[in-house]
Amino acid sequence: MAVEVKRPDSSCPVTYCLKVIGGKWKPIILFLISNNVNRFGQLQRNIDGISKQMLTKQLRELEQDKSINRNVFAEVPPRVEYTLTSHGETLLPVIKAMRDWGELQLADSKS
Amino acid sequence: MAVEVKRPDSSCPVTYCLKVIGGKWKPIILFLISNNVNRFGQLQRNIDGISKQMLTKQLRELEQDKSINRNVFAEVPPRVEYTLTSHGETLLPVIKAMRDWGELQLADSKS
Repeated sequence: MAVEVKRPDSSCPVTYCLKVIGGKWKPIILFLISNNVNRFGQLQRNIDGISKQMLTKQLRELEQDKSINRNVFAEVPPRVEYTLTSHGETLLPVIKAMRDWGELQLADSKS
Repeated sequence: MAVEVKRPDSSCPVTYCLKVIGGKWKPIILFLISNNVNRFGQLQRNIDGISKQMLTKQLRELEQDKSINRNVFAEVPPRVEYTLTSHGETLLPVIKAMRDWGELQLADSKS
């Protein structure tokens, strides 16, 4: 029954996914960006308990993984907006499954 | 557009889900248990880079969250097997979305 997972771990698809969105913050960051919460300050206000340093680190890693774009607009002061790349959008079904699960649990806890 | 996420963070469904399966290890543990990889040693062998201490901690937290059962069989030596609870099973769509995404990425990287 467990044959499916008895391969070298580097080719385990769940582990592969965790390398990109594992940890405490990236799914919520991608979720917010997909909901047009695109600016650094907006993101920080909407993520409970994240520090500026941690948000900067997470955004950089997502940019390096080509999941998000960092768009700098030549204004004074310069405006920076984050958007999902097409690669980042492929992660949305994962984020939505998390959201759906959370919605159900929150609804249950109220009833 | 972003109204959906502008509520107090404690009721953000993605954050709620991350409280249960956030971090580096829980999704892969739940995935393996759902694939009948039920024993401590089997789990450790199938999870690249996890220490005994970390696996113990993660299993305890999943048990406290009522996502898994720890079944102790009265044998000599005692046998312990982990299984998903019905609550843990509700997380499988999330894990499967992660697996599906990882499968696609791994297939793309080979082609």
